[in-house]
Amino acid sequence: MSVDEAGPAATPAPPYTAVIFTSVRAGGHAAAYASMAAEMDALARLQPGFLAVETARAAPSDGGLGITVSYWVDEAAAGAWKQVARHLVAQRHGREAWYREYRVRVATVHREYGSGVRG
Amino acid sequence: MSVDEAGPAATPAPPYTAVIFTSVRAGGHAAAYASMAAEMDALARLQPGFLAVETARAAPSDGGLGITVSYWVDEAAAGAWKQVARHLVAQRHGREAWYREYRVRVATVHREYGSGVRG
Repeated sequence: MSVDEAGPAATPAPPYTAVIFTSVRAGGHAAAYASMAAEMDALARLQPGFLAVETARAAPSDGGLGITVSYWVDEAAAGAWKQVARHLVAQRHGREAWYREYRVRVATVHREYGSGVRG
Repeated sequence: MSVDEAGPAATPAPPYTAVIFTSVRAGGHAAAYASMAAEMDALARLQPGFLAVETARAAPSDGGLGITVSYWVDEAAAGAWKQVARHLVAQRHGREAWYREYRVRVATVHREYGSGVRG
């Protein structure tokens, strides 16, 4: 985990694009999944237009829902990442093997507030 | 936890509004926090324009980042919920007591895909 995953991500003033990826993992392959997730994270950060990523997964005893939100300068940058991610996942068994269920939502962030520097 | 929190939420065809709430909890008050979170969840579901909510929090050993995404028919519905939530949190010590850091992003979902009924 890199430093910026310890808290809410730093993002520029809106508008920008958010890709909300919600999933429930299929059972098994935990080490292989962790390795793939780390590789996807590293690759995302190298993509043009990448801004930040936030990720959290509930304990299996609590439903095991995972949410990863990646932030991009615009929809074109998010779309380019989609192709890279899809290819990587396909190489490693495919989404059906990793996820029991998943959903992707592409959104435009209009407003942002909270604690910290941009209060 | 209600049934629809066991997996990605069911939402209607876009566009609709997503409120992405990212936070790191302040230490302590775990039982009181769980109680407040459950109450907020129940209240959100009663709000006009509520569609769904998804939530996940990483283990403290993994940074403890929490992500809750609530979905609303439009920004007005999300804004009305903001007032209710703010009031509830304020009654119970205030955000500063519950969260070491938090960030709220209001976004419009344009596109959605994934496994399951809407493929």
